Order: sequence, then structure tokens, then C-alpha cells
Amino acid sequence: MSKSHPEQGLGSLVSNRRRACGARPGSPELSLFDDLEAVLGAGNVLRGEAAREKVHTLYYPVGTPLAVLRPGTTDELSQALRLCNAAGQPVVPFGGLTNLVESAHAQDMIAITLERMAQVEVIDTVNSVMTVQAGCKLQTAQEAAEAVDLFFPVDIGARGSATLGGVLSTNAGGNRVLRWGMMRDNVLGLEAVLADGTVISSLNSLLKNNAGYDLKQLFIGSEGTLGVVTRAVLRLRTRPTSQCTALVAVEDFEALPKLLEAAHRGLGGTLCAFEVMWGDTYRLATTAPAPALPILPHGHAYYALIESMGADQEADAARFETLLGEALEAGLVADAVLAKSTAETAAIWMVREEGTAETARRGAIFLFDVSLKIGDMEAYVRALKASLADRFGEAADVWVFGHLGDGNLHININIHGPAEDVRHDVEALVYEPLARVKGSISAEHGVGLHKRDFLHVSRSAEERGLMARLKTALDPNHILNPGKIFVIEGDGIAAPAH
Amino acid sequence: MSKSHPEQGLGSLVSNRRRACGARPGSPELSLFDDLEAVLGAGNVLRGEAAREKVHTLYYPVGTPLAVLRPGTTDELSQALRLCNAAGQPVVPFGGLTNLVESAHAQDMIAITLERMAQVEVIDTVNSVMTVQAGCKLQTAQEAAEAVDLFFPVDIGARGSATLGGVLSTNAGGNRVLRWGMMRDNVLGLEAVLADGTVISSLNSLLKNNAGYDLKQLFIGSEGTLGVVTRAVLRLRTRPTSQCTALVAVEDFEALPKLLEAAHRGLGGTLCAFEVMWGDTYRLATTAPAPALPILPHGHAYYALIESMGADQEADAARFETLLGEALEAGLVADAVLAKSTAETAAIWMVREEGTAETARRGAIFLFDVSLKIGDMEAYVRALKASLADRFGEAADVWVFGHLGDGNLHININIHGPAEDVRHDVEALVYEPLARVKGSISAEHGVGLHKRDFLHVSRSAEERGLMARLKTALDPNHILNPGKIFVIEGDGIAAPAH
Repeated sequence: MSKSHPEQGLGSLVSNRRRACGARPGSPELSLFDDLEAVLGAGNVLRGEAAREKVHTLYYPVGTPLAVLRPGTTDELSQALRLCNAAGQPVVPFGGLTNLVESAHAQDMIAITLERMAQVEVIDTVNSVMTVQAGCKLQTAQEAAEAVDLFFPVDIGARGSATLGGVLSTNAGGNRVLRWGMMRDNVLGLEAVLADGTVISSLNSLLKNNAGYDLKQLFIGSEGTLGVVTRAVLRLRTRPTSQCTALVAVEDFEALPKLLEAAHRGLGGTLCAFEVMWGDTYRLATTAPAPALPILPHGHAYYALIESMGADQEADAARFETLLGEALEAGLVADAVLAKSTAETAAIWMVREEGTAETARRGAIFLFDVSLKIGDMEAYVRALKASLADRFGEAADVWVFGHLGDGNLHININIHGPAEDVRHDVEALVYEPLARVKGSISAEHGVGLHKRDFLHVSRSAEERGLMARLKTALDPNHILNPGKIFVIEGDGIAAPAH
Repeated sequence: MSKSHPEQGLGSLVSNRRRACGARPGSPELSLFDDLEAVLGAGNVLRGEAAREKVHTLYYPVGTPLAVLRPGTTDELSQALRLCNAAGQPVVPFGGLTNLVESAHAQDMIAITLERMAQVEVIDTVNSVMTVQAGCKLQTAQEAAEAVDLFFPVDIGARGSATLGGVLSTNAGGNRVLRWGMMRDNVLGLEAVLADGTVISSLNSLLKNNAGYDLKQLFIGSEGTLGVVTRAVLRLRTRPTSQCTALVAVEDFEALPKLLEAAHRGLGGTLCAFEVMWGDTYRLATTAPAPALPILPHGHAYYALIESMGADQEADAARFETLLGEALEAGLVADAVLAKSTAETAAIWMVREEGTAETARRGAIFLFDVSLKIGDMEAYVRALKASLADRFGEAADVWVFGHLGDGNLHININIHGPAEDVRHDVEALVYEPLARVKGSISAEHGVGLHKRDFLHVSRSAEERGLMARLKTALDPNHILNPGKIFVIEGDGIAAPAH
């Protein structure tokens, strides 16, 4: 059932790394470390080489933290945060360090890992909920659900490293958002610690609870700037027992939303992925040395991966075949193949996943993760390719693929030559046209350090002002992951530097 | 396709009405009304009888407001709120006045209706989103979606009166939460005005948008205490074209979660309602003078209404029959009937809906709307019946039914005799046992005035403190719907009065 999203290090993919953190680093009083050791135990306040090793990652580096704290309980974390808050000491919570926007960059700050709080605490099969600690890996939770014949639908490539605290703090998405939503839609309750040490335990396990404000929403997707998530109650689903996966070729962009609509209608609620690759990205992903095979011939304009999950393999496959037959007949689809085995399903998914891997092998690369309405996509991509060609000529390669059913496009751009110098120019070409079509600079990766200078593209001055109001209400000393998403100056959020 | 939830006035159902508002009413300076008239036009600042008529409702009365404002645009509302905020004048936004917890009680305050902002602004069929103004009726939006062959799944009995601003502010639920979620899960973006007049326009129409804090969450389910919702972007779905509805009889409570699980698995993602009535409630709802017929014989312990919606009537019905056959064979179900026509479907839903109507006809009644884990329900209901019998003997009738698949039970309690005197005793018997099982005092109706004294049953002191922090950050003068959900005193939320 599970797909192979091989985890991969980013290697040279550091081009949109930003070093300046906009934080307020400094050397805290030595007494703070003594106090932290008294709370956590000396072995859980790592310094020097031990701290550097703890934050080593194959993804974006996070700099050199002053120390790494390893609280073992919510209460220990609460005490540690209270000490840091009193000292005005910036702290950065981190999980699996697989973030793609440097949300956990911790240079000269105190980093906090919840690796000692990594348990699945309870699985309640009658009510289909699971209580987990934030340091628990996503894959561990998925497997614990499967072990009792249930299903946790959120899935990303980094499942084996990413922690639930991280995927909650960043509101992770993935390949099944179309059906089951983002992380926000799959969590019923959570526990978080505020900057001042207050423990907000909202471990609700009920599907419906309108007893006052839904406080958990504050901590989901706010990238650790409003509180540190310590535990959560996940909503589990019935485990699907059927899976149908097809790869289809499409000649005109206009056919894609029609095909998506036909899939929604024809598959009766079981559609769970609708992934699209632009034709040149498909060619790259299925040409040696890429390991994936060209399951359909090269030369079509677009390729879509369509997947359903249900409860009756035979009936679902028949329905899927009907859908594909009708789509071929209606001219929506030029060619199609429906997987007949688990191996064929894996081969189709490999094509989709090799999109990222192959583009990364071509040298320094900028990774983007935008969302916009399906109706705006074709023109946006065409204009982006034109503007990059204007600016960089032959030196720019643009690879487009993504979760089309969710409005989410991943755009990988190679610029041949010295990449760091052109980073801002490339970002501006990608992000600024999104303002006109009300697109988002981040569909699922978050803002972190990478996108904060472009937050104004997607969010108004009033929205940014309200974010600052919330930040200041919950973290008046601004110690929690400072400089991520935005930089607060005075009462509002600092304008972009350029 | 649509079901008959006849709208009904509450008639004598005013027993858990509370008159004291905990607000800070008073007589504002006359100049405030002059200023408001200058902004809105004299015809849109209603006083005296015109104001009283505007807030007339068959549901819970809302008292006599000082005035009713009728802004025609977001900007007019912004200017009006700025004036009220400067004057420290409490305001109460209201929609269709169908709320069941007096969330719009406006005695001696200024009430605000968005009835002049009632349009469906745009329907985007390519991206399946609809932009609406807050004064638009829920039913109007549902019908506008149907007109373009799309579907807005949130549905409640008061659809013809309730406005989208109201269902958003209260995070309404209804009969299809199991499949499509609450209102929160069906809105992509919204626009709201803060107490100081700041317009937060987060009219996102993207399924995935992680560009900073998800601000819309603040205004959903906060009952108008953090901002006034003015517009929203609703997520539309593919319109289901099949509907299968069954009524089944069940002898043991333990069989119900097993049947729910079998329905989830067997119906492959199309299950959208799992409603249960306790046996005596079924008998009442299907005995003359009730109009509903006893489709299955009286005498079983529980009756469940199970419904699926999909895309293939024949295949879905076959699958449903298989499910029922297996459930009969496994002994989960004692008897079952699957509707064979639209009329039979309506007849089954009438049984479910007559539960409320019949209990209301029996005189003064207290309506409750709790949620708790399915595994805790049977013992909770049994203990509640025992404690009510201890306290009231023969004078108490307890009627239980609800959205079992969502963990939500509606409990209607008749107390024969003078009802107002015993209101608090009944509430305490219903709510206090929920603390032990981590249940909620409100699954979907909200807190309003009715439940604020019991908020501590479901939310900790730290959670209530954070709610107060948010309230003060967004509405420092506490002018927005004051006294609803909680009463703020000093830095925190007032403890219950008893």
C-alpha cells in the first residue's frame, strides 16, 4: 500500500539558503545553562561538538546552536522555556530537520529537540484516535495505526525522519491532501507550551467540540513561533483495502481540470491523488540515468498520475477503467495505463518522485512550492518560463510538477553558473506574479527564512499586522523561533528589505 | 437529494434561557448615533420598534437592543466598528437568529445585521469555490452550488434562516460531518473586521496555503467575540448522484461502533451519516400524534440511520445491501430496511427529525448538545438517567439521539413542573460528568450565554487564560459580543459563579 518516496539528502541544494537569521543571538549568562542543567540534567543540555552533531542533517543546515536541550517531559520543557523567557533567550524547536525553508535555523540560539518524547502513547481503536508525543516520527505513527488495521493518511517523503511535532508545526501536506486534507485536518487536539512555560493542554479527541476557541489552530502551521507542540491526538481512518493507480497523457492543459472533475465524479469519493508533470519534466524523470521507465511514450504535453483508494479492489478497478475509457473517448486523455500489480503501481509513483531527484542531480537548484488556482496555472508557468529565459537565456531550466488537484505546483529551477548571486532575482520572478492571481508563495513547505521577504506577495499589511499582534500576545519577548515567517519591528512586521 | 429538516420555532423551549448578559450595557452618547447615521445612512440605524422588529425570532429571544445597524459594505462596517470601539460601545453581530445558546443576545447593546450583504458574489466552477457575503443564507449558497452541478455539504435544519456569517461564527455542524466535516472544514478563506475597524481580508481560495498564520481560524467558532465575519470563500464539492439510506435496529450498544466501523470499511469512503436514536426516543418519534411512521417495529434498544452518497446508484446500493446482509448475519443488526425510493428516504429522515420536534411538544424542555467518545456514551447516558431519576423522580423524561458517528449526542430533557427553577441543577447533572470522560459541553451549538458557567468542565484554566489573552489582543476594549463564551475579569476569565 505504501509508496516509495525515498528520502534523499539535498546535497548541493543549498542555493536558496539564507544565513542571516534576523534574530537576536548573543551569549546568554552562564547561569542560564546552570539553571537549565538543574532542570533537565547535565546530559540533556548539549554544548559544543555534541550540540553540532545533534543538529546534523542532510537537508538544509541549521547553523551552530549555542546549545541543544533535550527535555524528557512536558513539564521539563515548560520549566526550560520559563527560564529562557526570563533571560530573553531565543530558542528554536526542531524535529527531524527535514524542513525545506530553514524554519529550524538556530545559529547562536538554543535549539530544543523532543527526541526523548517520541512515544505513541495510546491508540484507541473504538474511537479511531491516537495520542502521540511530538518527537514521534511520522512513519512510526503510520505503522502503529496499520498494526491495528487503521490508517493515518498524511504522508510525505521524509516520513522516516520528520517528527509529528514538525509536521504539525508546519502543517505538512503531501500526496493525499485532495482526499484527506493537510495535517491540520487530521489532528483533533494538541498540547503545546507557550514561551512563558504555560502548558496549553487541548488534547481533545472528539470530532466535534465547539466549547470555546479552537486553540490548537494557533500552533498548527505557525512554525514554532507561537508555542512548542509536545503532544497531539491524531484522527485515524478506516484503512483502505483497494488501490488503483493510473498514468495518463494529456495534450491540452484545459483537459486537466475536466479530467480532475471527471475523476471526482466517476470515482465516487475515492480519488486521493491527482499529480501532474509537465512534459519536459516527465522526459527528464524517465530518461537515463534516471531509474524510472517511460511507462507512456515521451512527447505528450502533460502526464497525470491518478489514484483512488477504497474498499473493493475489483469494483474500484472496474470503475476506474470506465473512467479512463470515457476520458479516452471524450478526448481528454491521449493515452493511459492502469497499474495491474503493486510493482506497476510503484513504477508509476517512481516517475512522479524522480521529478525532484533528477532535477536536483543537475546542479545547483532553487526549489519552489507555490499554489494557485488551476485555471491560472498554465498562463503562470508559461510567463515564468518566458521571464526566466529573458533574464537567464539558456542558463535556466524550469521543471514543473505537483499536486494539481490541490492547486499546488512544485517548480524546480536550475540556473547554470554561480547560483547564490541570482537567488533573489529568481525568487522575485517566481513569487511576484503570484500577487496578481492571489496565489500563495507557500503551498505546504512554509515560510521559514526563505520566503519571509516575499510574505507581502500573499498576505496583506493588515494580515501581517494581525500575525504580529498574535505573536506579541503569545510570546511578548519574542523568544520562540525568532526571525522565522517574519521579523517583528516595533508594533508591526518589518517590510521586506528590498 | 435534500432532506426535510423542517424549520421550527422553539415555542416554549425557553427554559435554559438566561437573561443576565454579563456585559457592560449602558446609554451611549447621542453623538455616537449621529456619527453612525452619518456613516450608514439614517435608514440603516434602526431604533425603538424598528430595532425590536428586526431582531424578532421564533428561536431564543435576543432582548431589546439599543439599535440595529445595517452596514451595506465591509467598509461601512469597519467605520461603524471604529466608532463603537472609540466609544467603548458593546456590539453584537447577528445572522439568522437561529442560535440555540443565545450567542446573539443583545439586550442594551448595539446589534449588527449583515442582511444588506447577502450576495453570492462569484462561483468559480473550474476551481470549485464560491465567494459569499456573510448575510447570505446557507440555503441560498447550497442552491447556487447545485445550479452549477456542484455541492456545498454543510447542512443544518435552519438552512433557510441561518446566514453564512452565523454558521461560520459558530462553526456549525449538522448531519454530514462524518464525511465532509464542520463549517471550519469547508471554508478556504474569509474576511472579517476587528473591533477597531481593521479589515482582515484573508479571502484565500486555495486548498493549500502555508504562507504564515492561518488567520481565518480565529473567526470560525468564536461566536463573534474576535471579529465580525463579512465574506467567505467556500469550498465546493462534486455533487453526489447516488444516495442510499437505511434504518436498522440494534440490540446492544456495543454493536453500534462495530456497525459504524463496518460501514466505514464496507462503503469505501461514501458513508456520510450515522445517526442513532435510543429506543424510547424512537418510540416517541413514531407514535401518534407524531407524523412519522414506525418503519421498523418498536421494542429494539437502538435505531441507526445510515446513509451513503456516491456516484453510482446501482453499485452503491448493491454494496449497501451487502453491508446490511453481513451485519444481519454477524448479529450486529436485528432488523434493517433500505430505502427504495426518495419517498422512503424522506420517511426515514422524518423519524430522525421528529425526535426533537416530539420532545419539544411535551412542554418545557432543556436542549443539550454534548460530545464524548462513543465508548463512553452508553455508561454516560445510563448514569445521567439515573441521576435525573434520583433528583426528579417521574418528573424527568430523557430523550437521546444524535450524530453517533461524530461522537455528538443531543439530549432533550423534559422536567414536568416549573422548569426555570431547576435549570442549573439539570445542567450540572448533564455537564459535570463530562469532565471525567473528557467530553465537551458543546459539540456544535457553541457556548453563548447558556454554557459559559460550565466552560471549565471542558476547558482547563490555562486554555481559558489563553482565550482571554486572544480576546484582549484582538479586542482590547471588549466591545465584541461581550459576555458570550466567557466573562473576562482582569487578566483572566471569571470563574463560574457557583
